[in-house]
Amino acid sequence: MDGVDYLADERKKAEFDVEAMKVVWAGSPHNLEVSDRISKLVADDPGFRKDDRTMLPRKELFKNTLRKAAYAWKRIVELRLSEEEASKLRFYVDESAYTDLHWGMFIPAIKGQGTDGQQQKWLPLAYKMQIIGCYAQTELGHGSNVQGLETTSTFDPHTDEFVIHSPTLTSSKWWPGGLGKVSTHAIVYARLLLNGKDHGVHGFIVQLRSLEDHTPLPGITVGDIGMKFGNGAYNTMDNGVLRFDHVRIPRNQMLMRVSEVTREGKYKQSDVPRQLVYGTMVYVRQRIVADASCYLSRAVCIATRYSAVRRQFGSQNGGPETQVIDYKTQQNRLFPLLASAYAFRFVGEWLEWLYMDVTKRLQASDFSTLPEAHACTAGLKSLTTSVTADGIEECRKLCGGHGYLCSSGLPELFAVYVPACTYEGDNVVLLLQVARFLIKTVSQLGTGKQPVGTIAYMGRIEHLMQCRSSAQRAEDWSKPSQVLEAFEARAARMSVSVACNLSKFTNPEEGFAELSADLVEAAVAHCQLIVVSKFIEKLKQDIPGEGVKQQLEALFGIYSLSLLHKHQGDFLGTSYLTPKQAALANDHLRSLYTKVRPNAIALVDAFNYSDHFLSSILGRYDGNVYPKLYEAAWKDPLNESVVPDGYLEYVRPLLKQQLHTARL
Amino acid sequence: MDGVDYLADERKKAEFDVEAMKVVWAGSPHNLEVSDRISKLVADDPGFRKDDRTMLPRKELFKNTLRKAAYAWKRIVELRLSEEEASKLRFYVDESAYTDLHWGMFIPAIKGQGTDGQQQKWLPLAYKMQIIGCYAQTELGHGSNVQGLETTSTFDPHTDEFVIHSPTLTSSKWWPGGLGKVSTHAIVYARLLLNGKDHGVHGFIVQLRSLEDHTPLPGITVGDIGMKFGNGAYNTMDNGVLRFDHVRIPRNQMLMRVSEVTREGKYKQSDVPRQLVYGTMVYVRQRIVADASCYLSRAVCIATRYSAVRRQFGSQNGGPETQVIDYKTQQNRLFPLLASAYAFRFVGEWLEWLYMDVTKRLQASDFSTLPEAHACTAGLKSLTTSVTADGIEECRKLCGGHGYLCSSGLPELFAVYVPACTYEGDNVVLLLQVARFLIKTVSQLGTGKQPVGTIAYMGRIEHLMQCRSSAQRAEDWSKPSQVLEAFEARAARMSVSVACNLSKFTNPEEGFAELSADLVEAAVAHCQLIVVSKFIEKLKQDIPGEGVKQQLEALFGIYSLSLLHKHQGDFLGTSYLTPKQAALANDHLRSLYTKVRPNAIALVDAFNYSDHFLSSILGRYDGNVYPKLYEAAWKDPLNESVVPDGYLEYVRPLLKQQLHTARL
Repeated sequence: MDGVDYLADERKKAEFDVEAMKVVWAGSPHNLEVSDRISKLVADDPGFRKDDRTMLPRKELFKNTLRKAAYAWKRIVELRLSEEEASKLRFYVDESAYTDLHWGMFIPAIKGQGTDGQQQKWLPLAYKMQIIGCYAQTELGHGSNVQGLETTSTFDPHTDEFVIHSPTLTSSKWWPGGLGKVSTHAIVYARLLLNGKDHGVHGFIVQLRSLEDHTPLPGITVGDIGMKFGNGAYNTMDNGVLRFDHVRIPRNQMLMRVSEVTREGKYKQSDVPRQLVYGTMVYVRQRIVADASCYLSRAVCIATRYSAVRRQFGSQNGGPETQVIDYKTQQNRLFPLLASAYAFRFVGEWLEWLYMDVTKRLQASDFSTLPEAHACTAGLKSLTTSVTADGIEECRKLCGGHGYLCSSGLPELFAVYVPACTYEGDNVVLLLQVARFLIKTVSQLGTGKQPVGTIAYMGRIEHLMQCRSSAQRAEDWSKPSQVLEAFEARAARMSVSVACNLSKFTNPEEGFAELSADLVEAAVAHCQLIVVSKFIEKLKQDIPGEGVKQQLEALFGIYSLSLLHKHQGDFLGTSYLTPKQAALANDHLRSLYTKVRPNAIALVDAFNYSDHFLSSILGRYDGNVYPKLYEAAWKDPLNESVVPDGYLEYVRPLLKQQLHTARL
Repeated sequence: MDGVDYLADERKKAEFDVEAMKVVWAGSPHNLEVSDRISKLVADDPGFRKDDRTMLPRKELFKNTLRKAAYAWKRIVELRLSEEEASKLRFYVDESAYTDLHWGMFIPAIKGQGTDGQQQKWLPLAYKMQIIGCYAQTELGHGSNVQGLETTSTFDPHTDEFVIHSPTLTSSKWWPGGLGKVSTHAIVYARLLLNGKDHGVHGFIVQLRSLEDHTPLPGITVGDIGMKFGNGAYNTMDNGVLRFDHVRIPRNQMLMRVSEVTREGKYKQSDVPRQLVYGTMVYVRQRIVADASCYLSRAVCIATRYSAVRRQFGSQNGGPETQVIDYKTQQNRLFPLLASAYAFRFVGEWLEWLYMDVTKRLQASDFSTLPEAHACTAGLKSLTTSVTADGIEECRKLCGGHGYLCSSGLPELFAVYVPACTYEGDNVVLLLQVARFLIKTVSQLGTGKQPVGTIAYMGRIEHLMQCRSSAQRAEDWSKPSQVLEAFEARAARMSVSVACNLSKFTNPEEGFAELSADLVEAAVAHCQLIVVSKFIEKLKQDIPGEGVKQQLEALFGIYSLSLLHKHQGDFLGTSYLTPKQAALANDHLRSLYTKVRPNAIALVDAFNYSDHFLSSILGRYDGNVYPKLYEAAWKDPLNESVVPDGYLEYVRPLLKQQLHTARL
């Protein structure tokens, strides 16, 4: 029945102040207020309805996304929303669209790489959406290796223009979101050719379509690259293909903040430090980590609520069956993901601080922390997106058969999230970058260069190489210091061990290639340590609200000890732990599941997600799952008629043994 | 260019007889001949085209599936295909349809549970497809717990009929394939009520739709349950919902082979042993394991070929970049999956034998091997489907960004495969069944009851609890006996350890619940051992063909040692291995990657999959990836017009700052 809360009993069990936890999750009372207000605004507006999304054919789906994007912009203008509110609104509309790239890549690229003059010219147009831009970097043949891009931009001194060209098939731009059907402009990355000399990849502002009738300009071939994973998912986005046939643009449309081309065709570096691009990278990846906690928490919220609704087996004397959330196997899969969602939230929060710190230092020309900040954001991007993608799919499986229905919301969530493992740096490539940084750090130990930031623990290498866990009872694992030392010792030992194996190779690059799988494992150990240590730092803060800190402590234990169990081989293999101590950690982990169980529903309520945002019948706030699943089924297009289209042509002749005369 | 083999160089590198390997993969020269012939027949017939599948809206998609199913049946009849050939044809058509359930569940259920008279009446109709049947077991509220089904079948002695009824919303049948829009009949599982007494769940043949006009019969509400994961995927199937409002069927439509209801309404067991149902279960699960090797090998074939085509980084002196298959990180993810595909193929072959053995024994009323066979098939179903689902997604990620396009074939493959982890027994529930069997076996050690079959190693428990690996050099890990002992010792020790912890509980069921996560891990260790040992048995057979056995030996090493590395914690934790020995195993594993690398393309060619069957541009036999990706993009419906639908309504007003007057 509508209006009844089927999960009320679960909510009564909570041992902490849910409203206070909402503030913790949101980051501040202000954040919570804005999020709550804007999410309700979106949820209550039928213009943002999304429950029919997985049933629409591509063209209708896309057209509807165009409508929503325009409507969102209209509402933003009408309501005079602040930048913060506008970005929240787009977030809660929750439909990938060309506007993501316009606001998230096109504008920031002009801000970061354009001169003051270029910014003055282009930004006002972009802010008012009088032009719509995308970010055309990736090509058919090159993604990870940006330096291998093939599109060329040749300076023509006679006309003071660049000639943008696609010399090969593989040089076709491929993937940029918003490019396929919408963008009027693009930042195009191309090799700068001056007088026959290749100056490497640079960015250029190129108009693609007429502002009058939207047709592609001469020399430009542009289109959509076709269907992607999932029903709705990223198919609301016009990821595009783009080819240039000697397209001319004025010289002043090269983004010239860092280096410029003069009227005479000379290449000049400006005095703006090149390291600035790292600042942008830190920013983008910090956003990705924040997104990871958001996507993972959505999936966990759905799976947790449904696990409390679903009952299976274990009926005694005709009573109700057991809620599946009460099974330890379910807890053992679900609760570590719940804990990970919180862990990623806190490490994301810390990354926001890191980004500000890096920006401040860059402005003061202090580049000393950049390598560490770069390695740390690369690693955390890789770690959190991989765990989130796998975690969403695990949550789907935790919902049993019904998780396979689109109305569960989980297939859509997986399909729309999973490219995060590939874009902005393939996750394995990023881990190898982290590994390089680790090896370099190890090689510099003892040279007097003190490791800083997230790698500071390497400064205590002698202790970390020799110490042994002092855990003697399961409860010893409730101490954060106990856990932290274990993760530090493991990470340090794995880095040192692989560095030691590397030193046996005469050619270091050959060694790096040969041992790359081990290097990746060392990098993962380091990244997990960062998350663990930032969670501990969070726990040291003053956290108001009855019982809130206790819950976070339990989640910290679950996050770290489930990792310790999963990677037991590392901890035992580096001889920091004995098998007995590892078993004690596992015993403690189990006891934490019991502790979190009564609070599970309240812990996902604290995310404060509306039913509109979750878009999942299984994850409904009120737990009224079965009647709503039943209702939703009848909305499928196949149910428009009782007898299906095709019955007369293809089923009846078969049943009537008249196939031989049928046209098939 | 068409007609050029871009992978020819790769194929030349092969160090073994690919044609001989094709026979090994197919199982026999006969199997290869039939598969090859039928797969070409399907691939060459435009009636079975499937490259447009992900672009069709649901209704068109479904209608096209109806057409294909009828067309397939027409061809089967016209060509007078044998049962073997017909089933191969359906396999290569590769589109889930109602016929899967008709042939795979409806007919076998009548054969297995129907009396001779019932078989004589119903089977001829079904064989000619004069009726179309499905298998209606799962309900909205009950999947895993079959004994909890709620649909009732009440005998009415006055009319000699059963009254089938859906007493609650959760008793609605939900999920059966073919039910939603097509089936004329169903095997309905319902609680048998006689004189107010509940005799548990039984099967009934119920007509659902008129054979004249296909409308549902009185009292029956039936429809499709809506969109599922993926674009095409299982949306070609009409998974259905079904409710009964006191629907009457004649008494003789209860499947009465094992127990019957007399005219007087008495319940009678027949002398047919109930254990027969286990035979069916072994059969179904053996088919699922065979499917796992097929799906995994498809994904691996695509990822391997594309990894040889794709180049990224590592260009020296302007030469070509490195093929991504040459990166150890790629090999470390891809080759264990390649090895798993082969491993699952061989364990699937062995399961075929097991099924025949079980059948023979059942006919002779020998039930002694049933518990072991049941545990073993349950465990292998769980293990192989989990690895395959994750493996397909891993292969997709190994293809980088382009793997996210539907034209890569991988999103579709994942979405259509992944329900295998849930249907026919949820994978975690199955592992708990295996664990129960393991604990029981441990508890009976020393009672004189000798463990048989795949659990026979437990008979050597004393040795296995004490032995230590003798590996001293990396090459020692090339001996299958060395590997086998490691897996036996690990599995035995994990079972004994958890059994020991269980004995500390006064209430065994409580202990079983509390330790269920550990139990699942012990079950996985046991199942992996089975796969390892069956691979070894295969290697002991006479395998003709130059270099074939050597390749299989290398794959065996990769399969087992990559598992050993992944589960290092188990091997170290049970003190069978030292960290040093585990590191040596890993060194050997790396050397095997190098050995397999030049043979990788040939090893996936040996699957003998046509481009039609793979349905993947990235996995094309000729490696001509980029031009075909480019071509395919333009076929998307969004590219039907240069300016997209919705431009005038939703994009132009935005660009022209006229949103305030636009209708959105």
